[in-house]
Amino acid sequence: MKRTIINDLSIKNKGESVSVSGWVQKSRRMGSLIFVDVRDVTGIVQLVFSDKGELFKKAESLRNEFVIQSTGKVVERKSKNKNIKTGDIEIICDSLNILSKSSRLPMLIQDDTDALENVRMNYRYLDLRRPVMRDRIIARSNFNKITHDYFNENGFINIETPILTKPTPEGARDFLVPSRVVPGSFFSLPQSPQLYKQLLMISGFDKYYQIAKVFRDEDSRKDRQVEFTQLDIEMSFMSIDEIMNTLEEYVKLVFRKLDNFSGSEKFERISYDNAMNTYGSDRPDTRFNLLLNDGVELFKDIDVNFIKDSISKKKTIKYIKLDKKLSGKDHKELESFVKSHGANGLLFYSFDSSTKNYSGFLSKHITQNEKAYKKFKSNFGENNDYSFLAIIGDWKQTCEQLGSLRLELSNRYLTVDNSLRNFIWVTDWPLFEYDKETKLFSSVHHPFTKPTSETAQYLDTDPAKVRSLAYDIVLNGSEIGGGSLRIHDKEMQYKVFEILGLSKNEIKEKFSFFIDAFEFGVPPHGGIAFGVDRIMQIITDSSSIRDVIAFPKSTSGVAEMEKAPSNMPADLLNDLSIIIKDNVKG
Amino acid sequence: MKRTIINDLSIKNKGESVSVSGWVQKSRRMGSLIFVDVRDVTGIVQLVFSDKGELFKKAESLRNEFVIQSTGKVVERKSKNKNIKTGDIEIICDSLNILSKSSRLPMLIQDDTDALENVRMNYRYLDLRRPVMRDRIIARSNFNKITHDYFNENGFINIETPILTKPTPEGARDFLVPSRVVPGSFFSLPQSPQLYKQLLMISGFDKYYQIAKVFRDEDSRKDRQVEFTQLDIEMSFMSIDEIMNTLEEYVKLVFRKLDNFSGSEKFERISYDNAMNTYGSDRPDTRFNLLLNDGVELFKDIDVNFIKDSISKKKTIKYIKLDKKLSGKDHKELESFVKSHGANGLLFYSFDSSTKNYSGFLSKHITQNEKAYKKFKSNFGENNDYSFLAIIGDWKQTCEQLGSLRLELSNRYLTVDNSLRNFIWVTDWPLFEYDKETKLFSSVHHPFTKPTSETAQYLDTDPAKVRSLAYDIVLNGSEIGGGSLRIHDKEMQYKVFEILGLSKNEIKEKFSFFIDAFEFGVPPHGGIAFGVDRIMQIITDSSSIRDVIAFPKSTSGVAEMEKAPSNMPADLLNDLSIIIKDNVKG
Repeated sequence: MKRTIINDLSIKNKGESVSVSGWVQKSRRMGSLIFVDVRDVTGIVQLVFSDKGELFKKAESLRNEFVIQSTGKVVERKSKNKNIKTGDIEIICDSLNILSKSSRLPMLIQDDTDALENVRMNYRYLDLRRPVMRDRIIARSNFNKITHDYFNENGFINIETPILTKPTPEGARDFLVPSRVVPGSFFSLPQSPQLYKQLLMISGFDKYYQIAKVFRDEDSRKDRQVEFTQLDIEMSFMSIDEIMNTLEEYVKLVFRKLDNFSGSEKFERISYDNAMNTYGSDRPDTRFNLLLNDGVELFKDIDVNFIKDSISKKKTIKYIKLDKKLSGKDHKELESFVKSHGANGLLFYSFDSSTKNYSGFLSKHITQNEKAYKKFKSNFGENNDYSFLAIIGDWKQTCEQLGSLRLELSNRYLTVDNSLRNFIWVTDWPLFEYDKETKLFSSVHHPFTKPTSETAQYLDTDPAKVRSLAYDIVLNGSEIGGGSLRIHDKEMQYKVFEILGLSKNEIKEKFSFFIDAFEFGVPPHGGIAFGVDRIMQIITDSSSIRDVIAFPKSTSGVAEMEKAPSNMPADLLNDLSIIIKDNVKG
Repeated sequence: MKRTIINDLSIKNKGESVSVSGWVQKSRRMGSLIFVDVRDVTGIVQLVFSDKGELFKKAESLRNEFVIQSTGKVVERKSKNKNIKTGDIEIICDSLNILSKSSRLPMLIQDDTDALENVRMNYRYLDLRRPVMRDRIIARSNFNKITHDYFNENGFINIETPILTKPTPEGARDFLVPSRVVPGSFFSLPQSPQLYKQLLMISGFDKYYQIAKVFRDEDSRKDRQVEFTQLDIEMSFMSIDEIMNTLEEYVKLVFRKLDNFSGSEKFERISYDNAMNTYGSDRPDTRFNLLLNDGVELFKDIDVNFIKDSISKKKTIKYIKLDKKLSGKDHKELESFVKSHGANGLLFYSFDSSTKNYSGFLSKHITQNEKAYKKFKSNFGENNDYSFLAIIGDWKQTCEQLGSLRLELSNRYLTVDNSLRNFIWVTDWPLFEYDKETKLFSSVHHPFTKPTSETAQYLDTDPAKVRSLAYDIVLNGSEIGGGSLRIHDKEMQYKVFEILGLSKNEIKEKFSFFIDAFEFGVPPHGGIAFGVDRIMQIITDSSSIRDVIAFPKSTSGVAEMEKAPSNMPADLLNDLSIIIKDNVKG
């Protein structure tokens, strides 16, 4: 008899004979009856065994997670179970086939689990049986389908790019693969298909996409994976607005289909400078305010030497006003928080509207200085409690420190609506970042990002001033995609490499195939890479990207279940012309 | 103005102003007019420049493969060009924007190329501009879409499995990836997601598919790639017929949509033994006959010592009858061909029906022996020319040698209809292959293949007798997919590992995570892996799988364009705790 998928069963099947297969979720004997909940990938249905013979004995032997196949007649259930889709019916069984038995389980197969992370990882095949995990993996499959549909319908061509490749300058460390054929040399695993997708544009494919595996040999960082998945997209002959619209429509579609998103207005665009000044972050969470404000004007009359000094030195002073009175203890905790992010301190006062009392370090400098007091009073009033928290320092660091504080304050004192989906584009990025220690420029995105036409002139004179045609898409404070128009002019590409400190020889060594291609007609092009794991984490409301990856690596980058990496026989390494360093071996 | 895709243009656009972008295919001045063929990913259209001013000068400067954007009015063409889709129209241009220039090209951008393989590889982005190559890459994208649609519609879940993993026993050599985090240990790149997809079945996902990158560090073999693409599929709770039907419907759909296939009858199933006996191959090309026949009965009366001896020793004697007279020279060439495949010789005669003349080594032994002569005459008659070619030896080798000869004969003397699509299933494979030298059994497919219930009893007594529930799908002599039901019983899996010579410790070391999973309820399951590159090669009628891969490796396994693998700085290797062997370094 053909198997029936469990959740296809309903009261409509009443009277029919059916065959179901799956895992025993639970079984219990009640008097002369045995009830067995059997689970397949769709759901659960109740089997009933009442026959007193062999069949009953067999049913009595069932334990959790036995794999069974059973046939019987669908009947209406007396006491309906509203918790499952098949709760109106049960199956009175006339056969039972035990396909596989199960030992006692190291974890429960149910949504709520108190299993430790390492148990979940070591028995991932059990963890994935939990409906909540199953649904995440299914949601990811649906994400893929929606993605393939959208990009195909819009004329994109799905093209695979190599995994065994040459290092690309994406900033992180490459995984290397020793070559047996060319002893002493190595492939690297791609950090992104960036160069290949640009070559595809040069090949004439004007709309490309790929759901691509990419790799970064990074030190363990919370919730990053050494191998992860990127939705990689590139387009030629399109304006930046056409590209951003194409991508925005896609994002809306995905979140409409998988996440009950219903927004239709265009995503807000906010410049990098504005994002930093207002939210203290280049990927601001705009679901709540707690905005950063400029404090220079307010602080002008405060009679504290280091403040006066900072103002004269044109330091940045920024503050957040929280609509809540904080205690000295709160302040101390928050100050130590911002210090851990590199700030020198947290200038603070708290105002109690019932007692009109100002407390905290700044309080006396405000209340004892008439000019300052007037300014603060006219700015903030005295009708409501609030706290004032300020940081002084260099612009970028100060913004970022206060941006971190903003998130910390929201965690502590605000209730953020997790169902909100605040998409924004962050645009007008700096092209380069200057490292004072190494005295080197590095790319804020990557070396292929195109400068704006207004600022390209500064490439020769003041690279730090150059802005880029980059656009990151940010959702609730997470960057879910980063893209840009690309340089399609050979001279400009060379210039950027030079600013990054690459010599002609290094350019040739690392990118000759790419630079060569610029000789033969390059279309204007641009694209994006979306972080699929992150998007799925948000959509499935998971606490970790590990929950949306069937077989993830641990935070330290190892495969716990498979016990990989592992030792290899010496002869294999010998064939690869490598040896393990002595101090490791020994 | 919004860009118009070139092949969207037709006589319907007459009178409209349009903007097109693309590469200059060619340009020529004819009197006071300049004609420019511009090419985008869809096709070609003719631009006309007649204006005498700056625009004309700019158009005059165009060279092949310049990237341009041009606007103008669509007009009907006087002399239609039937070779291109837009041949009824041309565009009288009023603007021209040169987006990128091109140097002289190292190869022509047209279907017929005499460019050497290494030029095509080094300038792959130019090679991919050739319409024939472009269409292959697009066909592959369409293949992906059809595949995603089919498997999603049929309830399959698309799940990604890891690339950084543990060695699996697929028989070929693994690529290794040194771990930085666990010094002295290595990940391997997967030869297939076999273990993971079985674990997914154990996780309860009852229908899985994935278009997966897989890797084999094999020595250069004609038309194999070190990284290639596999359509990986697995199903639970289904009979072998249900599985094969699901796969067969998919294959028919792909070839209907991409390859004008119109067959609707079920694919023929042929057992491994039958395929070997009849075609001398486990992946027979059934588009032509030239079948193998048993020669023992025919040879019984031939009075040649080594033949008599072979018959008494129960050696295999098989022959092919070719309906054509061959010369002694032909015979010599064919004999040296089968010798290069390991045969001792090729027993031969040729019959000329006009002269009734028998020639070749066997001829006198037939014509001078009345009994033999009668037998041959009654078997083959004397009305038509033919040649008789036989090999004596061990069964498998003899079949294979004659199978190779069969293909060679078809190449030389038959006209095989390349439009035929002869799909067959090859079934009832041996589970093991015995190596006389190492005295070890190895898996014909892989260690997870399930024995038939009829022959499983021989696991303990005579493993060579065990047949498997494996099914390979063969098209025109190429294996395009290999699958099987899998063992889902722990004891049987252990037994198979033991027959393969793995000790308890080795099993634990290599497969403990997999074997452990067998403790917790394993559904009956089976699946297949299709070779996507091979399928696309056949569909696009390409001479090499390299032609259906955007950025392939060379036959020696290196990336010629990117110059990978390459040397890496010593400090990177140091971080990975490996050093290159001295004799390589020096």
